[in-house]
Amino acid sequence: MKVAKFGGSSVADSSMLEQVASIIESDQDRKFIVVSAPGKRYGEDVKVTDLFIQLAEQYDSGQNYEETLFKISQRFLSITEELDLSKDIVGRIENESRRLLRETTNSSHLMDALKAMGEDSLARILSAYLNKRGTKATYVNPKDAGVIVNSEPLGAQILEKSYEKIYQLRNREGVVVIPGFFGYTESGVLTTFPRGGSDISGSIIAAGVKADLYENFTDVNSVYCVNPKIVDKPKEIHTLTYKEMRELSYAGFSVFHDEALIPAFKKNIPVCIKNTKDPNCKGTMIVANKKDNGQPVVGIASDEGFSSIYVSKYLMNREIGFGQRLLSILVEENISFEHAPSGIDDMSVIIRTEDLKSDKEEVLINRIKNELQVDTVDIIHGLAMIMLVGEGMSNRLTVASKATKAFAEADVNIEMINQGSSEVSMMFGIHEHNIKAAVKSLYREFFH
Amino acid sequence: MKVAKFGGSSVADSSMLEQVASIIESDQDRKFIVVSAPGKRYGEDVKVTDLFIQLAEQYDSGQNYEETLFKISQRFLSITEELDLSKDIVGRIENESRRLLRETTNSSHLMDALKAMGEDSLARILSAYLNKRGTKATYVNPKDAGVIVNSEPLGAQILEKSYEKIYQLRNREGVVVIPGFFGYTESGVLTTFPRGGSDISGSIIAAGVKADLYENFTDVNSVYCVNPKIVDKPKEIHTLTYKEMRELSYAGFSVFHDEALIPAFKKNIPVCIKNTKDPNCKGTMIVANKKDNGQPVVGIASDEGFSSIYVSKYLMNREIGFGQRLLSILVEENISFEHAPSGIDDMSVIIRTEDLKSDKEEVLINRIKNELQVDTVDIIHGLAMIMLVGEGMSNRLTVASKATKAFAEADVNIEMINQGSSEVSMMFGIHEHNIKAAVKSLYREFFH
Repeated sequence: MKVAKFGGSSVADSSMLEQVASIIESDQDRKFIVVSAPGKRYGEDVKVTDLFIQLAEQYDSGQNYEETLFKISQRFLSITEELDLSKDIVGRIENESRRLLRETTNSSHLMDALKAMGEDSLARILSAYLNKRGTKATYVNPKDAGVIVNSEPLGAQILEKSYEKIYQLRNREGVVVIPGFFGYTESGVLTTFPRGGSDISGSIIAAGVKADLYENFTDVNSVYCVNPKIVDKPKEIHTLTYKEMRELSYAGFSVFHDEALIPAFKKNIPVCIKNTKDPNCKGTMIVANKKDNGQPVVGIASDEGFSSIYVSKYLMNREIGFGQRLLSILVEENISFEHAPSGIDDMSVIIRTEDLKSDKEEVLINRIKNELQVDTVDIIHGLAMIMLVGEGMSNRLTVASKATKAFAEADVNIEMINQGSSEVSMMFGIHEHNIKAAVKSLYREFFH
Repeated sequence: MKVAKFGGSSVADSSMLEQVASIIESDQDRKFIVVSAPGKRYGEDVKVTDLFIQLAEQYDSGQNYEETLFKISQRFLSITEELDLSKDIVGRIENESRRLLRETTNSSHLMDALKAMGEDSLARILSAYLNKRGTKATYVNPKDAGVIVNSEPLGAQILEKSYEKIYQLRNREGVVVIPGFFGYTESGVLTTFPRGGSDISGSIIAAGVKADLYENFTDVNSVYCVNPKIVDKPKEIHTLTYKEMRELSYAGFSVFHDEALIPAFKKNIPVCIKNTKDPNCKGTMIVANKKDNGQPVVGIASDEGFSSIYVSKYLMNREIGFGQRLLSILVEENISFEHAPSGIDDMSVIIRTEDLKSDKEEVLINRIKNELQVDTVDIIHGLAMIMLVGEGMSNRLTVASKATKAFAEADVNIEMINQGSSEVSMMFGIHEHNIKAAVKSLYREFFH
């Protein structure tokens, strides 16, 4: 059995939904379908979820929201009409929205409930449409599916006990269509996952029903080995390990939110990223283990927005606990560090610049100066991290050599190198303005 | 004015002392002379200091020490006879030793006092010999010179206030000969410096008298750019900065104990390492700043005996404070870490194996497992660190590239790279058995 998740671009209009239906019908194993809300149909189009957010905000601030509600209805109406489905579905969306606005007192609950309406409505539409096409399908609300979460500040987290209930979905007849993006707390409050939440829903369902495969349908043919915004038509990656995917998504690979991998990863369910518009293209498989194909590097990730805290103190290396005290100041300031290369009398701590509000910067510098009695402390901004990722890397002598050669050829100075802990990645710190030149040169070196 | 320090091998016998005298007389500026105790004259010979240590131990354990005392006397007798000096000096050594054994109740005080006798006696001999040659010279005891220290478990530490008193030495007429290796606490207890202590004494005197140069006479023509035990007849280093010297001595450069540099460093006194047997050879200058000679790497240091603690935990990078908690466990176990390369879900901490007694290893593993709830924790032994050092490194694109190429050519896998904090060094971790091949290859790459 397979779980297939279709993203917003895959369900943006009726023609896409026809495509989705035929994809489902083309493979008996595609029993569990998870859907997002309709995304953009063209560049300036507005995602349905964003319309619902607008609706909630307008209501909150006492503005008139009728036009927004009308837009939402029209968006779904065009779909139902083109698919020749009953108008009741659209009527239900409008009534349900008004009911929520009327009855929900807690404004964050209201926001969640409205945000979820896009996915929920589309799941109802898709299951109706499948039945109309003669494919037995049932809409199942996440509460009935057993998606029980605890509400966290950073978004809902699935509860382990959910999986047992979800497993029961296997007993349902026909295709099961479940809206992504949200679950329910034990007290029955609808709660949404973080952005990219439908990927998480699909991953949870796949883990719960112990699927043979979790298919994640999106709008790209595969994961590329490097950011296509930097390198034109880069090579496709056909197989990735969870570990590789996770390291890649850490530094700028946005195809798939690595958090969404966790449920599938834990239950060892292979994931396949496919293109709805080109379902026969093999896509990218994400698996636990793969056989060595002699290619040490599978991908080059790059990300900007890092800063470095440089601290120097003569005879630092004689001071047991210096590094620990330095990091504990960061912890107390609630800053997580990415890397901490150290010399004999100096140490640098690489952090995300966003974690460093200007006032915090001053606090940090003063605390480090006063509490650690250092000779110098400097904060350098505008750093970028480039990460070479590949399971085959640990036993390849030449990776570091080829990489550093590529930087030199691109005239890019390496500010830092971090290799030695992860066996599947090697990290280089450079100045942001060099990022394109460096990535291009690395791509030439490893993929040509 | 210059301070010249002569090491044990430079004062091993009368012929060496003649050489030392002529070196002193050949330069009017050599006013302050610091001497070690006579070292080995040939391979199996015993250093005078070791004879004094033996004497103290024999006395402590109630054994007969007469033969040892006789050996000591004979050693000095041969020198005084060959230099045609009064026997009183030797008589004094014997009487003074007996008096110390008789009167000193505190056995660590006794050990220090006897250990210091070698330097003290040689200083008396040298000044007598210089006067005999017609060069006005005075022996000055460190107490009179103003070398006041506080006694630390790791050896004496100079007190800042000493320097004022030491400065007064400039008013003395003629050459001032001071025994190295020891000072006195404020309560007047003789206390020795750590091993290589005469280098420290020389450095302190140089700082105190504000010398123009601190000449450190030893038995090599200069500091070599790589360990001569690994590379045959390596290139000599003519100029080093304090920083470079310090980084080099950290990892296996034994020419000069970096601790000895500190007093000279703090007062910005240039240091020159010279060969007593070849005083006209320019030797190696150690200075605060040098002009860029286009050579990014001045030296390759290498050291063995490192271990790596590898810790992995899924989603580690989401845990603010993980690294800090890991390091604090090390601090609590009194282990100082050398480097800590980190991945996304894993972190390695490089430590000196000697800090890791087998029982401690188990304690560490258990604490990390239980307190940090990690997925894996492994300790890998038998690592070596290789360090490329050079002030010119930070702005040379090609250093990392050439270095990694050299490792690849030597078929040596790089277990870890640490670059990014120190601007004058780049650190590579490899397996110990590869150290010779790697160092040779790096030498070829950077010095041929």
